[in-house]
Amino acid sequence: MTSEETAARARRLDELPLREELRGQHPYGAPQLQVPAMLNVNETTYDMPADVVEAMTAAVRAAALGLNRYPDREFTALRGKLAAFLDHGLTAEHIWAANGSNEVMQHILQAFAGPGRSVMAFPPTYSMYPLYARGTNSEYLAGTRDADYRQTPEGVAAQIREHRPHVVILCSPNNPTGTALGLDVVEAAHEAALESDTMVVVDEAYGEFRQDGTPSALELLPGRPRLIVSRTMSKAFALAGGRLGYLAAAPEVTDAMRLVRLPYHLSAVTQAVAEAALDHSAALTANVERIKVQRDRIVAELTRLGLRPAPSDANFVFFGGLVDEQAAWQHLLDDGVLVRDVGIPGHLRVTAGTEEETTAFLESLARHLGRA
Amino acid sequence: MTSEETAARARRLDELPLREELRGQHPYGAPQLQVPAMLNVNETTYDMPADVVEAMTAAVRAAALGLNRYPDREFTALRGKLAAFLDHGLTAEHIWAANGSNEVMQHILQAFAGPGRSVMAFPPTYSMYPLYARGTNSEYLAGTRDADYRQTPEGVAAQIREHRPHVVILCSPNNPTGTALGLDVVEAAHEAALESDTMVVVDEAYGEFRQDGTPSALELLPGRPRLIVSRTMSKAFALAGGRLGYLAAAPEVTDAMRLVRLPYHLSAVTQAVAEAALDHSAALTANVERIKVQRDRIVAELTRLGLRPAPSDANFVFFGGLVDEQAAWQHLLDDGVLVRDVGIPGHLRVTAGTEEETTAFLESLARHLGRA
Repeated sequence: MTSEETAARARRLDELPLREELRGQHPYGAPQLQVPAMLNVNETTYDMPADVVEAMTAAVRAAALGLNRYPDREFTALRGKLAAFLDHGLTAEHIWAANGSNEVMQHILQAFAGPGRSVMAFPPTYSMYPLYARGTNSEYLAGTRDADYRQTPEGVAAQIREHRPHVVILCSPNNPTGTALGLDVVEAAHEAALESDTMVVVDEAYGEFRQDGTPSALELLPGRPRLIVSRTMSKAFALAGGRLGYLAAAPEVTDAMRLVRLPYHLSAVTQAVAEAALDHSAALTANVERIKVQRDRIVAELTRLGLRPAPSDANFVFFGGLVDEQAAWQHLLDDGVLVRDVGIPGHLRVTAGTEEETTAFLESLARHLGRA
Repeated sequence: MTSEETAARARRLDELPLREELRGQHPYGAPQLQVPAMLNVNETTYDMPADVVEAMTAAVRAAALGLNRYPDREFTALRGKLAAFLDHGLTAEHIWAANGSNEVMQHILQAFAGPGRSVMAFPPTYSMYPLYARGTNSEYLAGTRDADYRQTPEGVAAQIREHRPHVVILCSPNNPTGTALGLDVVEAAHEAALESDTMVVVDEAYGEFRQDGTPSALELLPGRPRLIVSRTMSKAFALAGGRLGYLAAAPEVTDAMRLVRLPYHLSAVTQAVAEAALDHSAALTANVERIKVQRDRIVAELTRLGLRPAPSDANFVFFGGLVDEQAAWQHLLDDGVLVRDVGIPGHLRVTAGTEEETTAFLESLARHLGRA
């Protein structure tokens, strides 16, 4: 569209009886550019293994014959496989799933937040959280962190006690900083939550990339009815295009999700593809170890280049120490390497890709810094 | 679960800080029973044709290799194919889609209704409408109909002018009654809508089954920026399990949808399967004609049996004249025929299935009435 057409269309949009809080807003989304190294949205950059493609294809062939019928509204088989993957004594009764963790979070906020209620998260953190709040008409509360973006048990508990939010989101490992929380923070948050009408969500979208010895909040689920651990198949399962997010929690939390989900929200095809991926979890998560090697290499090399990478439990690295992050971002892009400018001065975020992609990123950045 | 376990779980659910309006509610959904003739949820009862299964399988095989990447957020190719199918001069710019028309309606209400705003529909009509309102915290207004469930231009316009709802839903053909609206009703609704902050949605989920000569509201789109026509691939495309609903409207309406959709809401697999179905629209909609023959047969035979079927533009028939609709429903189920009790005394609703399923339904009902 020409800029004149774009302006005319914006004018016509404004003539519609849109909700006031949406006026003048823009659709969310990172640029979808095609370059040799796309390291900006924390995807797994390895292609889907051939045997997994075959398994998915066979599963969809079987499902396709019956697509004239509505899917299993309870996706029981898929929930069972997700529980088996998570282990920790979980069963299908503890699992809920939806079209990406976006929709899982929407279900959580529809049930426990919404109009007249609030959601608290701790910036810098995942940029979708305020949008989940807006989409469900919940009030968004921005909590605070200590130096170096750290969260302490005392700090989180005190903020919950003061603001009594209805949903608290702890992102661990945190996006964009990459660091995981100690379980003591989650325990303290849950204890404070029991004193008010608060649910605690630990978003472990990147949980499978944790450093050895870093525990998962799944360990804390027994006996904690207000705790929800959110996961996704987009990252470790390399299934960003398949859109399958899920959560583990007490069975009554999944009952709450059933009250707000739209019936048949998970298609028979989505269920079939996700089940096929879970049947090949060993093959798919084998790449996780390779990605962790590159992630640790990025941290070491950036340090050597005089930059300040944050310790990472994720498949990406957040680093500071740049004089002009926008110039660095553009230099990398000119070299065919797309990374993420998360809007924090002096900082960028890069996904750990293949060895070749990581080399391209590091070499380009070294040239930009005059260190090549 | 035993009834004791069920009660304990309900108690634990009630101990969670659930939103008040959800307390004591039950998940929505018709019984999913496996019987020889499942004629209760207006699915196409023909299996997916073999060549369409092959096309879907090939499309998913191609998509699977790249599932590590997020899908096309704009699903441009799919929107283009949906526009081509609808014809009426529409392009991809006029089309929006989501995971079932459930989610399409949710997007519409998130943008144009929501807290402090209202949605009006006209019972008896699709039972999900009040749930879309609840899910988006919109007020639900139940409009009224004339005798025999009819809607007139004057009646609809007067109710819009009186209540000034933010979204009005006209279901045409109406579920459960089966009858389509004249375009004069839609025109009158849109004219009244222009006087207040009202959007008009014509839900044509069953539009492809219209009687010859019954027009679609698609004809009215040019020059009517407040009009939205909603469609689904669940019925005529036999794709209930694939979950693809869509709408046609002015391009600025699709811009409004972009402000409320969760990014990447349509998976690459959903896009691939729906595109494959659209590439075979001739084969898939061939069954529509066969279903219409059975639908007209049901109306004729029920009349002969002394019952009162409503004229149907859909793939189902709503009929009255039963002394005890619950006894009739059970008798049919005992014979392996599952139909829908929509909660209107003396009435049931039956999907037009294959010739054999229709025969099983008619013969069982005749026996129940002592007319076999």
